[in-house]
Amino acid sequence: MTTTATRPALNKDTRLCISLAARPSNFGTRFHNYLYEQFGLDFIYKAFTTTDLAGAIGGVRALGIRGCSVSMPFKEDVIALVDELDASATAIQSVNTIVNDDGFLRAYNTDYIAAAELLRSNALDPATPFLLRGSGGMAKAVASALRDSGFADGTIVARNEQSGRALADDLGYRWLAEPGTATAPLLVNVTPIGMAGGAQAPDSAFAAETVAASDTVFDVVALPAETPLILAARAAGKTVITGAEVIALQAAEQFERYTGVRPTTEQVLAASAFARA
Amino acid sequence: MTTTATRPALNKDTRLCISLAARPSNFGTRFHNYLYEQFGLDFIYKAFTTTDLAGAIGGVRALGIRGCSVSMPFKEDVIALVDELDASATAIQSVNTIVNDDGFLRAYNTDYIAAAELLRSNALDPATPFLLRGSGGMAKAVASALRDSGFADGTIVARNEQSGRALADDLGYRWLAEPGTATAPLLVNVTPIGMAGGAQAPDSAFAAETVAASDTVFDVVALPAETPLILAARAAGKTVITGAEVIALQAAEQFERYTGVRPTTEQVLAASAFARA
Repeated sequence: MTTTATRPALNKDTRLCISLAARPSNFGTRFHNYLYEQFGLDFIYKAFTTTDLAGAIGGVRALGIRGCSVSMPFKEDVIALVDELDASATAIQSVNTIVNDDGFLRAYNTDYIAAAELLRSNALDPATPFLLRGSGGMAKAVASALRDSGFADGTIVARNEQSGRALADDLGYRWLAEPGTATAPLLVNVTPIGMAGGAQAPDSAFAAETVAASDTVFDVVALPAETPLILAARAAGKTVITGAEVIALQAAEQFERYTGVRPTTEQVLAASAFARA
Repeated sequence: MTTTATRPALNKDTRLCISLAARPSNFGTRFHNYLYEQFGLDFIYKAFTTTDLAGAIGGVRALGIRGCSVSMPFKEDVIALVDELDASATAIQSVNTIVNDDGFLRAYNTDYIAAAELLRSNALDPATPFLLRGSGGMAKAVASALRDSGFADGTIVARNEQSGRALADDLGYRWLAEPGTATAPLLVNVTPIGMAGGAQAPDSAFAAETVAASDTVFDVVALPAETPLILAARAAGKTVITGAEVIALQAAEQFERYTGVRPTTEQVLAASAFARA
């Protein structure tokens, strides 16, 4: 049996939010419904998959489904199906959140929003040089947030020359295939290095000397949030920003856009813990 | 506050059933969710409206929504949007239930199914002549069920000559504008006469002498089920079939098609009482 969360009977006016992913997890469904119950909101949330993205988004519109979270592999293809892109989605040409206002679909990218907000809330000086590892979708979100937050001196480190160079060129940063002996006061990991569940023991995205030479370490890996990189940074007394913060913040941004209600960090963390249980 | 029904936390595999109507009521949402809880089924049900029927049915298909109940004014237009019509929907060219098996949409009419089943379970002899008042969609369902159950001697009574005559001609019955002094052992009311909430006091669909001359009275009006016609028939010691039985049976047929689980009459009545509360 799953842990139960109780709430009032559904009725015809209950709002529905959904997610679309090739392989849905239980996280979003449990996360959002937990918070609906906490706030007494007359909403339900359910993950879906589809082999017909246009039909699914057409259904969101025709059925008045209030919100639609978008995961892999639909984040780019969905752009052609919405009515308006928020600046956050335009910045990286990738959507993870659609809000339906009476049939008008506005698309956001709350990963970008969360990354930009964490740079702000940690009061990082945009003059700070950074090294960022990664060149995938989330790397694009974080690097774009850095660029749009005024960070002009950056290096994208990515073994994949094509995507790494393209990302660096797009944003006006340098590209490096390997970190080597490069150092910077701000280190950002947006690769899966350090994630649990791989074939090998979790590794650190940056060498100990690189961490030692930095001031702030930002690791987007969330499971576990205490990656080898974050643990090393904490041990060395550095400022850290964890993947758990990114996930919590992007979820809060998404939740607020769907419902108009802003969960606190504590509420988001409690919902995340429930969702993972 | 609405009465509360509690149920397990939603998860990604929870099945969704919906309804489509121009003006949804709360009945279906409360009815189905009540029974899901009673049976411990991992389902939810939610009423929707739409101004884009094709988009909504496309969404049912693309999102893998398990079932879709169809109300006015979509019962005919939806025929072109499904993959297969069950004999019950073909018989009256009207759909109230769509079952989605992996993207294949099969459409039924459980009003027709319920009417036919009530004729059977009440062991009515098909040789019995009948008078049926009404010429709308539900009248078509009941009259077609009579015809397909072998009732050959029937009269359709309807003030609307066009629809009344068409229905009678289609099914091989006589048409009368007014009941007048006509009598028959089986009386069927499929007009709103006797329904609560009208401007005038509830009336009886058949005169006292007509009821006196009958054996069985079948009234499709469900709110209240104890219409003036049913009360008069009971007082005169006639066999009665009420609209509550029709609603309960059609709902059970629909519920079973969506979930594979057949509620008992008692469970359907309890769910109906909950749904109306």
